[in-house]
Order: sequence, then C-alpha cells, then structure tokens
Amino acid sequence: MYSFKNDYSEGAHPRLLKALSETNFEQVDGYGEDLYTQKAVQLLKQTIGRDDIDIHLLSGGTQTNLTAISAFLRPHEAIIAANTGHILVHETGAIEATGHKIISVEVGDGKLNSLHIKSVLDLHTDEHMVKPKLVYISNPTEIGSIYSKKELEEISVCCHENNLFLYIDGARLGSALCSDENDLELSALADLADAFYIGGTKNGALLGEALVICRESLKEDFRFHMKQKGAMLAKGKVLGIQFLELFKDDLYFDMAGHANTMAGLLRDEITKAGFNFLVHSPSNQIFPILPDRIISELQKNYAFYVWSKVDPDHSAVRLVTSWATKEEKVLAFIKDLNGAL
Amino acid sequence: MYSFKNDYSEGAHPRLLKALSETNFEQVDGYGEDLYTQKAVQLLKQTIGRDDIDIHLLSGGTQTNLTAISAFLRPHEAIIAANTGHILVHETGAIEATGHKIISVEVGDGKLNSLHIKSVLDLHTDEHMVKPKLVYISNPTEIGSIYSKKELEEISVCCHENNLFLYIDGARLGSALCSDENDLELSALADLADAFYIGGTKNGALLGEALVICRESLKEDFRFHMKQKGAMLAKGKVLGIQFLELFKDDLYFDMAGHANTMAGLLRDEITKAGFNFLVHSPSNQIFPILPDRIISELQKNYAFYVWSKVDPDHSAVRLVTSWATKEEKVLAFIKDLNGAL
Amino acid sequence: MYSFKNDYSEGAHPRLLKALSETNFEQVDGYGEDLYTQKAVQLLKQTIGRDDIDIHLLSGGTQTNLTAISAFLRPHEAIIAANTGHILVHETGAIEATGHKIISVEVGDGKLNSLHIKSVLDLHTDEHMVKPKLVYISNPTEIGSIYSKKELEEISVCCHENNLFLYIDGARLGSALCSDENDLELSALADLADAFYIGGTKNGALLGEALVICRESLKEDFRFHMKQKGAMLAKGKVLGIQFLELFKDDLYFDMAGHANTMAGLLRDEITKAGFNFLVHSPSNQIFPILPDRIISELQKNYAFYVWSKVDPDHSAVRLVTSWATKEEKVLAFIKDLNGAL
Amino acid sequence: MYSFKNDYSEGAHPRLLKALSETNFEQVDGYGEDLYTQKAVQLLKQTIGRDDIDIHLLSGGTQTNLTAISAFLRPHEAIIAANTGHILVHETGAIEATGHKIISVEVGDGKLNSLHIKSVLDLHTDEHMVKPKLVYISNPTEIGSIYSKKELEEISVCCHENNLFLYIDGARLGSALCSDENDLELSALADLADAFYIGGTKNGALLGEALVICRESLKEDFRFHMKQKGAMLAKGKVLGIQFLELFKDDLYFDMAGHANTMAGLLRDEITKAGFNFLVHSPSNQIFPILPDRIISELQKNYAFYVWSKVDPDHSAVRLVTSWATKEEKVLAFIKDLNGAL
Repeated sequence: MYSFKNDYSEGAHPRLLKALSETNFEQVDGYGEDLYTQKAVQLLKQTIGRDDIDIHLLSGGTQTNLTAISAFLRPHEAIIAANTGHILVHETGAIEATGHKIISVEVGDGKLNSLHIKSVLDLHTDEHMVKPKLVYISNPTEIGSIYSKKELEEISVCCHENNLFLYIDGARLGSALCSDENDLELSALADLADAFYIGGTKNGALLGEALVICRESLKEDFRFHMKQKGAMLAKGKVLGIQFLELFKDDLYFDMAGHANTMAGLLRDEITKAGFNFLVHSPSNQIFPILPDRIISELQKNYAFYVWSKVDPDHSAVRLVTSWATKEEKVLAFIKDLNGAL
Repeated sequence: MYSFKNDYSEGAHPRLLKALSETNFEQVDGYGEDLYTQKAVQLLKQTIGRDDIDIHLLSGGTQTNLTAISAFLRPHEAIIAANTGHILVHETGAIEATGHKIISVEVGDGKLNSLHIKSVLDLHTDEHMVKPKLVYISNPTEIGSIYSKKELEEISVCCHENNLFLYIDGARLGSALCSDENDLELSALADLADAFYIGGTKNGALLGEALVICRESLKEDFRFHMKQKGAMLAKGKVLGIQFLELFKDDLYFDMAGHANTMAGLLRDEITKAGFNFLVHSPSNQIFPILPDRIISELQKNYAFYVWSKVDPDHSAVRLVTSWATKEEKVLAFIKDLNGAL
Repeated sequence: MYSFKNDYSEGAHPRLLKALSETNFEQVDGYGEDLYTQKAVQLLKQTIGRDDIDIHLLSGGTQTNLTAISAFLRPHEAIIAANTGHILVHETGAIEATGHKIISVEVGDGKLNSLHIKSVLDLHTDEHMVKPKLVYISNPTEIGSIYSKKELEEISVCCHENNLFLYIDGARLGSALCSDENDLELSALADLADAFYIGGTKNGALLGEALVICRESLKEDFRFHMKQKGAMLAKGKVLGIQFLELFKDDLYFDMAGHANTMAGLLRDEITKAGFNFLVHSPSNQIFPILPDRIISELQKNYAFYVWSKVDPDHSAVRLVTSWATKEEKVLAFIKDLNGAL
Repeated sequence: MYSFKNDYSEGAHPRLLKALSETNFEQVDGYGEDLYTQKAVQLLKQTIGRDDIDIHLLSGGTQTNLTAISAFLRPHEAIIAANTGHILVHETGAIEATGHKIISVEVGDGKLNSLHIKSVLDLHTDEHMVKPKLVYISNPTEIGSIYSKKELEEISVCCHENNLFLYIDGARLGSALCSDENDLELSALADLADAFYIGGTKNGALLGEALVICRESLKEDFRFHMKQKGAMLAKGKVLGIQFLELFKDDLYFDMAGHANTMAGLLRDEITKAGFNFLVHSPSNQIFPILPDRIISELQKNYAFYVWSKVDPDHSAVRLVTSWATKEEKVLAFIKDLNGAL
C-alpha cells in the first residue's frame, strides 16, 4: 500500500535529521533565542531579499494562522476568505475561538479576487456588522490552484486601497513557487502581503512554519502572542536547525520541485489516459475524475482521498505528492491505472 | 561556559533521534492517528497501570495547560493556583486568553494545600464572583519542591468534596517521581487527579507532553480542542515515536534519576561548603544562597539564573540539571565554588 | 414625517412607565433579586404553563443571544443558522467574539428546516471541523416569515435525534404568536425548544428580554454568565416591573396584535393597489416591491428602509409596525400610496 | 425596615421619569443615534469642558468596564488594579472573559499609586509574562476613599511615562467629586485619564453610565465594540434622556451632594458616639466598626451589609447613602444607635 494521501506522511528530509543529531548536545538558549534560529531567520531574510521584515518560527499551520491573525486584529475586525479556505473549513473554528468572524466568499477555483473583496466591503457598512480587516488567501489554494503575480498584485492593491491587511497561508508555498506556471518570486510576496508564512511541515520538516511579518505596525510584541498561544517551543532550536537546513543550498525548493514533478507526471499520464480534472491545479495536489470502478481497483494498492462525487459513476480523487514521493511508485500507479481501464 | 540554566538546553536523548531516523520514511497517518502514537499511548497506559484513561500527545507545557484547562471549564469557572504557579506567572496570560480567571494563593514553598483551597472557596460565594472549579498544582513545583502522597491525597479529597477538578502540571514530573523523597507512584496520580501531564520536553524529548485525562466527563471531544488550539501536529508521529522510546526500558525514569543525582551532588556539596538554600527542593532544581562575590566568580564559567536578592550581599541562584548534565561539569562547578570561598 | 422604520422608535407602553413611577421609591434588592422580578418570572411561568423552566430578564437581544449561547456551548461547538439570522448578520460578530463559529445555511424565506440541519451535520464529521451543537432560529424570522407548529416540531425532532440544542430568538415573538397564520402556542415553544426568549424591547418595553431555559442541563449557574457578560442590571427591577406589566391582562399580546393588524392593513391595501411582496410575511414586518418613483414620493412623508433593488425600476422596502403605530398614519400612508400611482 | 445596603435600591430621580414620559411617543432613531443622546453627549462635553472627547452611553458598570477595556487592549496586554478593584472582585471574571489578565496589587486603602504601578512593571520584563498596559482605578474606590488631584496627577504621569493607559471607574464618581475633601474637577479627569466613566445607575438613573474616551487612539470604532458586547440598546434614547436630565441644572451633583451629606451625618454622629471606622471614606459609603451586639440591635430596623469581622466582638458594617436617602431615616438610625449603647 503506497499513500498519496498527504505530503506529511513521512518524517523529515534526512539532512534535517542529520543536522538535529549533529547539534544535539550543544547547549543553547531556549524559546527561539538560540543561534540556529537566529541564523535561520537571517538566511530566510536573505532568501526573501529583505532585511526589514520580522520572521518567527512556529510549529504548525493552524497555530501560525491563529496566532498571527489574532495578534493582528482588534476584537471587532473580521477576515475575508474563500469558502475553501483552510481556516474556514478545517481548523475547528480556531480563528473564531480567538474571537473573530470569518466572512466566507463563494469561489469556484479556490481563489479570491478583488471583486470578491469589494463585494464583502459593500455589504459591511456600519457598526451592526463586523469590520472586514484582513484578507486571507492560500497559495497554493486548498485545491491546488495558484495565484499569478498579476492576480496577487490586484488583491494587494485592493487591500491597501481599502485599509485591509493581506495575509497569505503558505502551508504549501514551496509547491506554488516551484510550479511550472508560477511567475511569483518569494520577494514579491513580501512586497505584496502584510504577512505570510512559509510552510515547512508539508515540505520536508518534522514540523515548523516560518511566519514573515512585513508590515511594520504588525511586528510589535509578536513573541508575546506566540507565548500566549502556546506557540513558543522551549527547544526552539528544533525549528531553527530545520529551517537553516531547508534554505541552505535551496533544499526547500528542490524538494518542492520534486513534489511538483511527481504530480506533473501523474497529471500528464492521467490526462493521456483520457481523464479530466476537477480543478486546474499546477501544484502538488491533483484532483482527477475517475470512474468509481477504477477508483476501487486502485484503492487495493494505493491510499488517497475520494474528494467528491461528480456523477453516479464518477468521483474526483485527491492525489498528493511530496518531497518523499518515489518515482517508481508514481509509475506503478500509472501502470495500474492504465491496466484498470 | 557550561549552562545550568535549564533542562531544555540540549536536544533529545540519542535513542529518540535514532528512533525518528529509523522510522523516517514509513508512511503513516497524520494528526496522531499513526501506529507509533497508538503504541506510545498503550505503553503509557501500561506504565500508569490504567486502561480507562485517555492520553493525548501535545507539543509543550503552555499549550497543554491552555488546551486542557479551557476544554474542561465553562466560561464562568476559575482556576485556583499557588502564586508561584507557572500558568500564573510565566505563560503570558495564556489561560486568561481563553477566558478564565486564575485565583492566586500566596504560599511559601510553592505548594498548595486544602486549607488554601478552602479559603478561596469561602470567599467565592455568589454569582458576582467567578466560580472556582479547577485546582492547578505543579509537581515538582516551579521552585523544586515536591508533593508527598499524603499531601496530594488531602488535596484530592478536598477537590472531590467540593466538586473541583484537580489538574497537575507535570512539566518536570519525572524529576518529582524519581526524587529520593518521593512516595508517589505514577498510578496514584491517575487515581488522585482528574488530569495531569507527563512532561517530555524537560526530560529528554525534542518536544512533547503526554496529557492524561482520568475523569470520564472530561474526555469527550478532546481532539477537537487540540485542533482548535493549534495543538495537533500534522506529523503527530514525531511525538508518538519519542514517547514510545521514552517509556521503553524506563528511559524516562533513568534520565530523571540522572538529573536528580546531579542536582543532589550539587546540593550536598554546596551544603558542605556551608551554604543554605532558599527552599527545600529535592528535585532537579536547587536554589542555593551564595555571596554575590562568589556568584560573580562562578558566572565566568557557568550560566545560571540569579533568582532573587536575599540580603545586600547574598542572592539565591537557580541551578537546573537534566538527563544531559555531565557529572564532570558538576564536579568542576563544585571545585570552582570551593575555590572561590 | 412618520416612521415605519422600526418597532422601537417610541418609548414604552404608558402602563409600564406608570408602573415604574408608582414603585419608584420602594427600596428593593438589586440584580434581579427583587420581588417584582420574582413576580414577573412567576407570571411568565404561568403564561407559558410550565413551572420547571428558568426565566432570566436581560436588557437586549444581542446581549441575550451572546450570553445564552456562550453559556450553553463548549469551546469547539458551533451554531447552525439561516444566512439571514440576526446573529450572523447584525450583531457585529458578538457570538464569534465569545469563541464560537456560526455555520450559515442559505435559505430563501429566512426559515431553517431539518434538511438544512442534516446537510450541515453531514459535512461536519471529524475533529478538524467544529462540532455543530446548537440550532438558532428566529420566530418571526428577520424577514417577517413565521414557523408553523409542524415546521417547528420537525426541527425539534431533528435536534433531539442529533443531540443538538434548539434556541429560538424571539425578539418579535409576540408578533409571530399573534399572527393570523400562527398555530403555535407559547407553551409549545417551551416543549420544543431548549431555550428561547420573549422580546420586550420590540413590543412595548423600554428595554428587556425574557430568556426561558427549558432544558435542565442548561440552567445551572446561568446568573454567573449574566454577570460576566455585563447583562445583570443593578436595578434589575426596571426589567421585572416592566415584564410584570407586559404579561398582566395580556397587554403583551394586545400590543403585538395591534402591530399585526396595522401591518395587515398595509399589506391588504398594498396588495389591492396591485403590488407584490419580496417574501410572505404574516407578521409586523412587510416587504412590498414598489416602483422607485413611488418610493421617492412616499419618502417625503414617511421614513422606512429601502431593503433591496429588485429590478432597474423597482425596489423592496421594509415597513415595520408596532404597538404604537397609529391607524390614522397607516391610512394616510395608503392614501398617499394610491395617490402616487 | 430601612435600607442602607446600596445606592441602587430605589428607582430614578422623578425628573428622569418625567422626562421619559414626556418624550415617550416621539419617534426617534435607535441605537443611540437619537437627538436626546446627541444632546446629552453635548451637555456632558460642556460640563467636562472639552470638545475633543468621545462619549458613549452604556447600561451598567461591568458592561462599561468590559467593553472599554477589551476595546482598548491587544490580546497580550494586561490591567493593573488594586486588590479591592471591582473588576478583580465583583464582576465574575468579566475582563478575563475577554481574554485579559488583571494584575492585582495589595493596597491598604483601596488606592493605587505610582510605586505600586512601577513595582508591577519591574516584574514584567519579557514575553513570558503579560504586558501591563492599562491602569484601572476607581474614584471613589470600592471602600469609599477618594483620590486627591495630586495623587491622580502622579498616577497619570507614571502612566504616560510608561506608555500605560489610565482608566477610571466612576461608578460613584458624583460622590467623589462632591466630597468635602475633593479637589478634583471633572475637567481634570479628562486631562489626566485616557478614559473614564460617569456613573448614572448609582446616582439617580434607572440605568446608564457615560463613558468618556479622551485619548485619540482609543476612540476609533468604539460603537462596533458596544454592539459586539451587547452594550448598544435599541432604545438608546432611554439613556440619552436620562443623562440629559441628570446634567441639566446640576441635578447630578445635587444628588451626589445629598448622598454625601447623609453619609457625613452618619459619620459625624457615629464618631461622636465613640466609634472608629475601618477606612477613611469621605464619600457615600462608610464603614463604622461597631459592637456585634449593637449591630444585631440595628438590624431589626435597618438593612446593611456586615463587611468584615474586626475582633471577636466587633465588626465593620457598610452603610451606603444615595440621592434618595431620607434624612429622617438617618436621624432615626443615629437615635437607635445611641439608644443601643
């Protein structure tokens, strides 16, 4: 049984484990005040090409989202998100638990645009309603689509014109940035967004996300919020060491590239086999629509999620690849798929 | 420079790193639903000697405290804690951020007793005040003292008579249980407390705390709370694998025992050198009172916290040992101390 | 200028002011522990026909909703509401501010049914999503429609089968119960709902809502929640005296009946004049669709909200009547409308 | 039985009820956007002597405190208060329920000073602890003492030097300002504090507190917070009309003066009778220490709280006077006291 269920099924890239082992007995300060974390932050700033940003390392995506968003907003301020947004759907009300409403916008392809944002603003006109203040997008989105630079610029302009913060959930940011269709540089994110995070857990770390705060006014006292939300590891170096390794020699991008290549291989061969996809997703998640009979056949040897029923005989499935996905398994999957036709 | 600042200065016990490496490429389910986590939970239940308890693995102490306590209480219910309690002092208002007041009780030695609890209950008589509902204690306490079985039984009886939950913060539980003066079995904790946690971070894990929920009514839906508070790692196996290793062959207790032995060595020799201590602490934290001149001398080669001024010329310092503390460094410290007299 | 904007434009029914004046210098206990409040609660229990319910008097609708719902739910539990629900739209995120997500269901006529509820339950299957626990409906709804007894029974059965609480926002409950089309008795509400409130502010009180808690498990410690949310008036008798008067000699129902009669008069005459309505609303709010030209004409002498654009030349307006609406003004409005045709 | 239990035992000053009656049938806008509220705000600004302040009318003290403080603070920021502070003791954790810790400072006479504040700041040095940000004081304090202008200036300077907000709970502000010992003008409060409220409920209103926001940065969007916390009455005019009346012809100060005069009469005569007081309280609450035998005797005809046991045979009692306290009853009390000697 080989799994295409997720990009966090395996552990960490061996280089990260090696780095953890090699530094294991060094005594360092706790709570992210160690030298490794400082070096990792420095390296990330270099990679992004900006020195005037703050970077904090946290453990997971939900934790990063709830800590950042609740730190950025006042009690009456709300978030605008696509109806597919992770914070809306799969974080057990983590944001609402910090007191903030998320305003859902129905979108087809997982992507928000400035018209969506304006339509929300038009409806929120007085103090009997929450005040929209932060736009949440994910890149890639939860269904694998990615934002072009132009799309992101348009959103960013809209946000700034309307005094909104733009926050980007980058749980799978590596995959977006390494997509064949991507035209966004990492540095552009720092220019266009007020804050975003670079996901480590889903691209080869044991755990860890790097939150980048670009807007000056959002930086103050952030470590208080981390501590308060339980998001400050005593052994903060566990995150620092991993991120230092991830961004040394472009390992992070190499891994994301591999995940995309494997997804691309699946996509191409499934297309050749005559099947369509639920959504155009040029990243490491693909959603082919397959006959239910074939799905059952494939499930004998492969684990993956059946995403949604498309018609009485067909369903969309989700296949996720990662830095650890083996090409031989991808090829075997394709062979088995073709064999089942 | 050798550090006695903390018990989380180093990484993990090498056996844990080895286990992480060996299982690295196994594909497992996420969010703590993997086999390693299940095995770890099973092993913990065996070690505790109870099968009717729920065990959840979380990342850190503050996270465990805030997730558990906010899950257990209704909005108007409050916590009773010693004034030295970690949740009161060093968690940046994490509990209050979930909406609950902590009622502080002034105690001398870090330990709460039933008289303290009753004095709080006597003062809280109607709906104009919060309703005390959960007693929070730490064992060992934040200043190294430990509870005897009799003391804990008395608190437990008081809690049950007054319809209060008893929650024990076990960030350094290993050190308490392995203290020369300890007469508490791990199983007794499960009988006396409604919930407690077994700290991993401060006893040889990279990160990880095992929350044990003993009271039936507190178990329901706990995983929802973990997810909502950002306390559910995607790669939950990182915690499972470590706890499985920690409780295999009593590694956890061996490590805590070593920490205590090193602290004992320091304590004995400092006593011999003619010094007193701020508090009686038979665990891995000791608080000798030293002349400021000697403190300055020792700070040239050793890192540790100066805890409090005792008189114009003397201060108490905090020395913390751990599973990783080297005996040779302890001996060197003692030698340097004696040399400085 | 005469206003049909709201049912809270005037003060209180004169009998209430008289009762406040007559009792003004009596010294009574504070915080709702006075004799008038106790008598009001007793009278309400009689009117509802149940003695095993708890009744609390609060100041306003948003306050009642947020105090009750946050008292009833655990942190991970969520509310199901129609997309038109007041708590979703016009309470500035008051519920989310207490930590709870509201799941919105798109409905046409403001009314939720068991299919809607089940569709939400089907989507919420694990701990990565909130746990739906309370169904919020308003009767009448925010757009004037009302629930039949059969509809409410079906919802109630669905809630009980699925372990959900049913909560009814009765800001305008009098108008629903006195509607020509109503077949619900007040006593049935107590049988079918777990909690509901009887709105005073919108039916002749200066301020005041009576929250009725029917389910035993939701009653405990409710006064703590009231105090904590700032919902316990020092001079609680101000509410008690008013509710005592409201339910003496059926004044409450007489007033609601008058409001409905005035709305009915408007409805009938507008229908006769050849116009349609946005929604079927047999209560004290009606939403006729009028030519924009006529709307402009009417706005010279009458205040009301333009609700929504229906086509380039027509809009729906909202006309609200109350206990204080003068028949002569209604007739004048109709005359002016007909004159403008 | 005559009650000295509270200053909210009676209803409202008759002039307020009359004003409510006279305006009862005028149709006005809801939610505090009516003309009466606007006039009241204007009159309050004149009385305070400042035009650059924002004033909002809310229903009660706890509601005002929780709405204001939660609007002013970010999640990690905390409040400093005297251990006797109302928000600490008698508001059921209302502030903590909005997520903020209150740091308690032990004081003898209910009054905070700059040394207390600095001692808290000295202890809160990093992100492992909350960040003190708002100083909460009450004038008069909960035990009847009042702040001199010099004392308040010293606190204000300390707050501004340390970037803290100063918030004054004025539930009984009238009594403080009209005390024989007072040297504070209302206008000075607006200069020295960042926000404060002028209590109506305890000085002759049915309900109502006027929150004054002086600091520019705290003004923005305050009505959103009011609505979110359930603190915006639909019939906002009920508050506006009352405050307009309260501050017309100095009624507010006349009433507070009467309450003080009555308290002074009690104080003088009790002193003459040879008794001491628990605390020096030159406002409308006094705390004489009486023999328990005499207390029992007085309780036959008078209601009041026994505050605390002073020695085996003596207790302090609390006597509260108000605008409605009758001189004849005060004289009768004194006579009965002297008769019981």
